[in-house]
Amino acid sequence: MKRIGVFTSGGDAPGMNACIRAVVRTALYHGIEVYGIMRGYSGMIKGEIVRLDTTSVANIVQRGGTILKSARSQKFMTKEGRQQAFDQLVNHKIEGLVAIGGNGTFTGAMKFEEEFGIPTVGAPGTIDNDLYGTDYTIGYDTAVNTALDAIDKIRDTADSHDRAFFVEVMGRDSGYIAIPCAIGGGAEIVLVPEQQQSIDTVIETLQTARKRQKSSFLIIVAEGDEEGNATIVANKVKEAIPEMDARVTVIGHIQRGGAPSAADRLLASQIGIAAVEGLVNGMRNVMAGIVDRKLVYTPFHDTIYKKKLINQGFMRMVEILSV
Amino acid sequence: MKRIGVFTSGGDAPGMNACIRAVVRTALYHGIEVYGIMRGYSGMIKGEIVRLDTTSVANIVQRGGTILKSARSQKFMTKEGRQQAFDQLVNHKIEGLVAIGGNGTFTGAMKFEEEFGIPTVGAPGTIDNDLYGTDYTIGYDTAVNTALDAIDKIRDTADSHDRAFFVEVMGRDSGYIAIPCAIGGGAEIVLVPEQQQSIDTVIETLQTARKRQKSSFLIIVAEGDEEGNATIVANKVKEAIPEMDARVTVIGHIQRGGAPSAADRLLASQIGIAAVEGLVNGMRNVMAGIVDRKLVYTPFHDTIYKKKLINQGFMRMVEILSV
Amino acid sequence: MKRIGVFTSGGDAPGMNACIRAVVRTALYHGIEVYGIMRGYSGMIKGEIVRLDTTSVANIVQRGGTILKSARSQKFMTKEGRQQAFDQLVNHKIEGLVAIGGNGTFTGAMKFEEEFGIPTVGAPGTIDNDLYGTDYTIGYDTAVNTALDAIDKIRDTADSHDRAFFVEVMGRDSGYIAIPCAIGGGAEIVLVPEQQQSIDTVIETLQTARKRQKSSFLIIVAEGDEEGNATIVANKVKEAIPEMDARVTVIGHIQRGGAPSAADRLLASQIGIAAVEGLVNGMRNVMAGIVDRKLVYTPFHDTIYKKKLINQGFMRMVEILSV
Amino acid sequence: MKRIGVFTSGGDAPGMNACIRAVVRTALYHGIEVYGIMRGYSGMIKGEIVRLDTTSVANIVQRGGTILKSARSQKFMTKEGRQQAFDQLVNHKIEGLVAIGGNGTFTGAMKFEEEFGIPTVGAPGTIDNDLYGTDYTIGYDTAVNTALDAIDKIRDTADSHDRAFFVEVMGRDSGYIAIPCAIGGGAEIVLVPEQQQSIDTVIETLQTARKRQKSSFLIIVAEGDEEGNATIVANKVKEAIPEMDARVTVIGHIQRGGAPSAADRLLASQIGIAAVEGLVNGMRNVMAGIVDRKLVYTPFHDTIYKKKLINQGFMRMVEILSV
Repeated sequence: MKRIGVFTSGGDAPGMNACIRAVVRTALYHGIEVYGIMRGYSGMIKGEIVRLDTTSVANIVQRGGTILKSARSQKFMTKEGRQQAFDQLVNHKIEGLVAIGGNGTFTGAMKFEEEFGIPTVGAPGTIDNDLYGTDYTIGYDTAVNTALDAIDKIRDTADSHDRAFFVEVMGRDSGYIAIPCAIGGGAEIVLVPEQQQSIDTVIETLQTARKRQKSSFLIIVAEGDEEGNATIVANKVKEAIPEMDARVTVIGHIQRGGAPSAADRLLASQIGIAAVEGLVNGMRNVMAGIVDRKLVYTPFHDTIYKKKLINQGFMRMVEILSV
Repeated sequence: MKRIGVFTSGGDAPGMNACIRAVVRTALYHGIEVYGIMRGYSGMIKGEIVRLDTTSVANIVQRGGTILKSARSQKFMTKEGRQQAFDQLVNHKIEGLVAIGGNGTFTGAMKFEEEFGIPTVGAPGTIDNDLYGTDYTIGYDTAVNTALDAIDKIRDTADSHDRAFFVEVMGRDSGYIAIPCAIGGGAEIVLVPEQQQSIDTVIETLQTARKRQKSSFLIIVAEGDEEGNATIVANKVKEAIPEMDARVTVIGHIQRGGAPSAADRLLASQIGIAAVEGLVNGMRNVMAGIVDRKLVYTPFHDTIYKKKLINQGFMRMVEILSV
Repeated sequence: MKRIGVFTSGGDAPGMNACIRAVVRTALYHGIEVYGIMRGYSGMIKGEIVRLDTTSVANIVQRGGTILKSARSQKFMTKEGRQQAFDQLVNHKIEGLVAIGGNGTFTGAMKFEEEFGIPTVGAPGTIDNDLYGTDYTIGYDTAVNTALDAIDKIRDTADSHDRAFFVEVMGRDSGYIAIPCAIGGGAEIVLVPEQQQSIDTVIETLQTARKRQKSSFLIIVAEGDEEGNATIVANKVKEAIPEMDARVTVIGHIQRGGAPSAADRLLASQIGIAAVEGLVNGMRNVMAGIVDRKLVYTPFHDTIYKKKLINQGFMRMVEILSV
Repeated sequence: MKRIGVFTSGGDAPGMNACIRAVVRTALYHGIEVYGIMRGYSGMIKGEIVRLDTTSVANIVQRGGTILKSARSQKFMTKEGRQQAFDQLVNHKIEGLVAIGGNGTFTGAMKFEEEFGIPTVGAPGTIDNDLYGTDYTIGYDTAVNTALDAIDKIRDTADSHDRAFFVEVMGRDSGYIAIPCAIGGGAEIVLVPEQQQSIDTVIETLQTARKRQKSSFLIIVAEGDEEGNATIVANKVKEAIPEMDARVTVIGHIQRGGAPSAADRLLASQIGIAAVEGLVNGMRNVMAGIVDRKLVYTPFHDTIYKKKLINQGFMRMVEILSV
């Protein structure tokens, strides 16, 4: 393999740049040329492809976002779009790809490989940590720290005013972000999609705590919880306990940005190196991940269809710690 | 004056604790006893009053929120409530008050002084910076830095995805928070209550910029803007420019919390000292503030009825800098 | 077991408070009384022992340092000292201990158990991450993030002035802090005790890079490196390459403080719970740790005498990434 | 004026990039072309001069350091060097300069104007805040916040271990950084060049406090204090009070880097605009500054030879607040 391409796709995540840097420098270390494909599959189709050298990735290890930008591409979902993408890669003599993104990204890569034979190795780049095949995804640790920092600030007000705050954190269909935020933020209650917890239980818990003279509360709500988002939950609670001074904060998009944490930079660097070395060694249709501190390549098929379960022990922790 | 009380009232603000610390230590320095009144006027009525010494305020200069807590009191708006508050102060032999808060707080203090003769000196504690009689209020600098830090993170995503973000910041009826966020955050547009700026102008500005190939945008919206909040503005824009990928983030309550900035700790300390020394020197019904780096005492009447105008030059700056 | 004690000992580490909180609440959850022993073994000897309840540990999960304080005790190294400590525990009816600290702490606990039969379960609290029996120690992740944040700032100056910065980080006899700082900080070179790397190699690497027109450099030096500390290394380099503008920064004690990271709060909470539940289940002379995301109890003897080896792959990463 | 140049010189400071951005965009706003001169006078001599447009300064408002880099130039101190610099400016048709830096920078600019008639307007860019003609310099607020953040972390350890920490902050020959750090950091003592404070007084203060059972101490030492740096002061104190557990931390270069604070971005933007508009209006040999919130142009001669005095009230504040 003499020339590879790298791109980011799907929602941006802190550490994507650190991963791009690792991909570029590892390729160069192995004597392989490397090109950056802008805006994911969209730029691949349009031929927005640029040569990267070692200075292209200088001073980006600490930057949030992605220098290669990201976009969704409807066109790549069509055969015609993928044909155009393939033609662009052929024009640029690109023989293999490193795709930094999530399951949508890997699904596209699998289809592309099936039709055109271009091998791709994936890197798990998403704040949601919902990918099978790696303990942590790139961006997850940073997102949790950002959310927790916001929660620490909110607690200042909650304490000062004896209020209840319903704080909504990201995480799509999982409680991966919500749970460490609840444990680390000293929350009384956490609502996550993985576990049914009725509003009635929430109300009961709050009423019991109020009887014990507890006056300020923190309730963390994962955006995908089935009882609804933080506003819906807060309204139901306020209906049941009208004397409670309850507020809602949606932490939102700040969770996607900012300088990556140390753990995310390390993970992104490990995976970036592994992705290139995987390609060099003939791998395809696999995602590089770290499981129990060891490098593991998992077939895209598994990352897409297998579910990474959340540690059930964490739910018990919230209960014990809010005693 | 042998014994004074100190309390915080209204919305909490970073630096309130630094101010409480300065009040306590200055009182002790002058040989005056000092009591903390919990939960503002509400605790005054109920007699939630505790002796404070130098260690009561150790290690709080860097803490957000307020160790004296804050609350609104309907009862203090009645003559009966104020009578009870007065009785409590008499019981505790408290001869003067330092009130840390905003205009609601000062209005109560004026009324209270008129009826019962208890002198109060005020300290401007609010993130909104909307108080006449001081260049900056305690908590304002921190709130702006917190909002700006969030905006920096949001821009990572805006850039990576070529999106427009409509970011709503606090500030009640003023653009004091919004404007430095717009200048420091590199925003294209800022909407503030002080200046009429129609949606049509906003749309036009964005369309012009798009023609110049600009692809990501930051629009800062002050919560009190008359065109409506960030969501309303974003929806109007999306209607006019449907191809623009526009998102909304409401920064919300995190702006109230967190460790106070250096400037806020310094300001809070200066004002805490000045408030006590004002009381000692026989002042009443005035707020201690800093205007052009000099200590100034302004009658409550003026802080309440005079309007602090925003620097019009700042609006021009946003225009120039987004060229 | 009806009553236990908890203390912190050795250098303080961010997350110790989160661990104390977890110990207290878990004990209460299981109906066990819990006492805080101030200043480690020193306070145990003097009987500085206080009852803790659920509110004693409210609002500390996010605080650096340790509310139980820490100290070294010469006296506990004598039989007489330990006898006094034992008498104090008997007086307070304390039947078991949770010791948060490092190997010095655990060595004392083993000796104490041997002589007086008081069972102790340990929690690994040290920023150095040099304890066998757990992948990460409490405080390590925060210390690395703090050091890295400082390094990011230093790089601004290094880049602006085309300088070389020799940055010394903590870590006693290991490169656990230095290595992620080097990878995450984009350093050219890292010097750690685990690996011999002569000054000559350092000088050669820098001269090669200078020939490639590289103008700013970051060299991370672990405090325990055998070539000497950052100042010594920098002086040797300056002697060899006098035209290089080289500066030294010792990050120092700031690495021990600050709000714990999300990962440290989670780890501290897991381990605090596990330590109490270990005691309840009859364990003694073991440290609770997390290895490959699973709870593991390791005999004190092993934590003290077995060496936790650093991942050799990380050294190769620095080399590849500084291409 | 049709074309101007901008450069940064002297030690880098957070906010320099925000100032460069403002200079560039203001020039373009007024239809003036703008060139960036790399590495200060050194790059001017060598002709390292690049055209800047609006995108050259996109996304830098939040970045520490300076994209134009900075360097000291011995050669510019010679007539020959200045002649070469002038020739380069003539070649590039540059008719006026904006110089971002401190007194060394302005001294060079004055000499240059005298000999070659090229007008320069200065912008005060230094963390030291020691320039007459502006209340605050660009970078000062950020440096104080960075130092204070480090001090907050150090206090965690000081408290946990009952230690005294001697913390050295930057500031060349002034206490501008040290004083807000002392007030905002809750320090017991501050040593600054502006005020004689003998070691004996320091020792006495510490001994008095120890008698009052105070166990942890923070002493802030400005790097230019005449009693010597933090290490020297600490050693003298340890000699007098050997039982005190005293440590030294030199905060060092991290004070120069990092994202600029909100206040620094605003100030840098105001001054960048003012510098260009000053040039356009025919000014020369003046520095743009903000005094009492108003824009002021001060002759270079005054910024160099007049001394900006520190507020003496601040020293009294430290005394009162450490009661």
